[in-house]
Amino acid sequence: MREVTLKQIAENLGISITTVSKALKNYSDVSKSTKERVKEEAKRLNYKPNVFAVNLRTKESKTVGLIIPEVVHHFFSSVVNGIIEQAEKKGYLVIILQSNESYKLEKKQIDLLIRKRVDGVMMSLANKSIDIAHLKELQSHDIPLVMFDKISKMVNCSKIIINDRKAAYEATKHLIDSGCKKIAHFRGALQPQNSIDRFLGYKKALEDHGLPYDSSLVYLCENVDYEDGRRAALQLLKDKKDVDGIFAITDMAATGAIAVFNEKGIKVPDDISIMGFSNWFLSQAITPSLSTVDQPGFEMGKKSFKLLYKEMKAKKKGVPFEPKTVVLDTYVIKRNSTK
Amino acid sequence: MREVTLKQIAENLGISITTVSKALKNYSDVSKSTKERVKEEAKRLNYKPNVFAVNLRTKESKTVGLIIPEVVHHFFSSVVNGIIEQAEKKGYLVIILQSNESYKLEKKQIDLLIRKRVDGVMMSLANKSIDIAHLKELQSHDIPLVMFDKISKMVNCSKIIINDRKAAYEATKHLIDSGCKKIAHFRGALQPQNSIDRFLGYKKALEDHGLPYDSSLVYLCENVDYEDGRRAALQLLKDKKDVDGIFAITDMAATGAIAVFNEKGIKVPDDISIMGFSNWFLSQAITPSLSTVDQPGFEMGKKSFKLLYKEMKAKKKGVPFEPKTVVLDTYVIKRNSTK
Repeated sequence: MREVTLKQIAENLGISITTVSKALKNYSDVSKSTKERVKEEAKRLNYKPNVFAVNLRTKESKTVGLIIPEVVHHFFSSVVNGIIEQAEKKGYLVIILQSNESYKLEKKQIDLLIRKRVDGVMMSLANKSIDIAHLKELQSHDIPLVMFDKISKMVNCSKIIINDRKAAYEATKHLIDSGCKKIAHFRGALQPQNSIDRFLGYKKALEDHGLPYDSSLVYLCENVDYEDGRRAALQLLKDKKDVDGIFAITDMAATGAIAVFNEKGIKVPDDISIMGFSNWFLSQAITPSLSTVDQPGFEMGKKSFKLLYKEMKAKKKGVPFEPKTVVLDTYVIKRNSTK
Repeated sequence: MREVTLKQIAENLGISITTVSKALKNYSDVSKSTKERVKEEAKRLNYKPNVFAVNLRTKESKTVGLIIPEVVHHFFSSVVNGIIEQAEKKGYLVIILQSNESYKLEKKQIDLLIRKRVDGVMMSLANKSIDIAHLKELQSHDIPLVMFDKISKMVNCSKIIINDRKAAYEATKHLIDSGCKKIAHFRGALQPQNSIDRFLGYKKALEDHGLPYDSSLVYLCENVDYEDGRRAALQLLKDKKDVDGIFAITDMAATGAIAVFNEKGIKVPDDISIMGFSNWFLSQAITPSLSTVDQPGFEMGKKSFKLLYKEMKAKKKGVPFEPKTVVLDTYVIKRNSTK
């Protein structure tokens, strides 16, 4: 059975398409008997109106775009979860795109979403995206934009973030409070704002507690993943710095470090304490279980859509909208990888 | 800057919309000078043609729908990854929906996709979906459907699956070959085809190796998750069945079991061997690392889109298309949770 159209119904009944459309929408200037004939024919043909057809008056498509760096990722998939659940409640469909941290891909994807005429876009900025002209372009087409997690200070739009500096400070403080004196940091890539902020939080915690900051104790984990964590841990052991604590920027990196220490018979937390970040599921499953900072992904997704929805509604009504920045709480979770 | 339309360009230049459209598409019956004027004006206004507007001739929207039970899920997110990467290559956008294993939600989502007029749909069936009338309905609207992972035998469409029976057989055989004599099974929900097949594979492996099948050694894990694995392991210990091996239907359930045994000082694999399924990342990160069966999620996603694309192309050309079932390979990965 092919796609049923208004035209088909009109032809079958020998009336105009306009009359069919009006009849289905219950317009008062169509007779009751005509309405009944039309509805019966529509039912017989199993006609399903396209509620997503761009509303000619409001110009809405009830579809939004979502760009995340990685989908096989506990945190980002939690955000997606929060977004699609909220979008569903409001009758919106979500188009998902993965940038793989590539500026080039992200730029292309923004362009696709502009052409698709989505009603709004939510995104976490790719690591490699320094230039944000593509985001300004999106906004120049009057498409509401909400950024979450990795945001750009140079774009005026709503943002949902955590206080990365404070969170990293508290993570480092937890290590200090548990007795650590020489704390290394497995940091993220140099560009992303949240990576910079977590590094600064770590640094400030050391300073505030009278511990010297030593840049040779900072290890770069470009991909902040398990392999990076392993590499950094191996390097740290090679460097023989006598470190007694590590604050790793992600749970995956911390997990890689723990794996190396387990293999080498180095006891965690007795010989060296490890602090992760983001509270992925696996942080509770590994041995020792990983102390970490909870990062509310689902909540972030939920709030991202809610804010986007507010802005899309305001745009539809033609009322001005002031972008908001929402800062979600984080908290330290002590498990067995710290004393 | 509001959305630029062909109408605007036409008005600005004092020509018809048809001429503008033809000029942008380089029709030969439009003069060179008009084409230049139109292109210049379009550029000046930053006009971006909506390449996703339903092509009136072909009726394509270059958008497809994807329904998965859960997005915060290593396997399903790997499938999503494979799908969106492939879709991007072919210039398609992907709408993502999450059914949460609910038949009601899945039914509603299929309806949304019909109304959205997507060009095709890919999905893994929700656990609670016994009735498949909603899928027949989708097909009655001539929308190509590809099912993956959890499929329905009663729907005639392309399918990408693994040989669950063979995979489970090999998993159980691995336990038997390593010396296990009394093997329990943490099985999945009673409905889904793959859950039934994995149970049957386990059973056959026992039979083929002269080990008795004992239904009291089969523990139901409705959600096949970590908590279910913990619960089943605690029950198994309470039942005092002297089991020396467990084949768990998912890595998450196996991880839950291992956590319980670690807590109780029961040695894995010395006292009891554990076999998981799906090769999630965490299976290599836990201690002991989990022996499992690799389930090629990314490949499954990639092939799902490729098959859907073939069918969409055939439909566009008006040529018949024969649904295909693709069976992907799996293999046993031995780690430290088995001898």
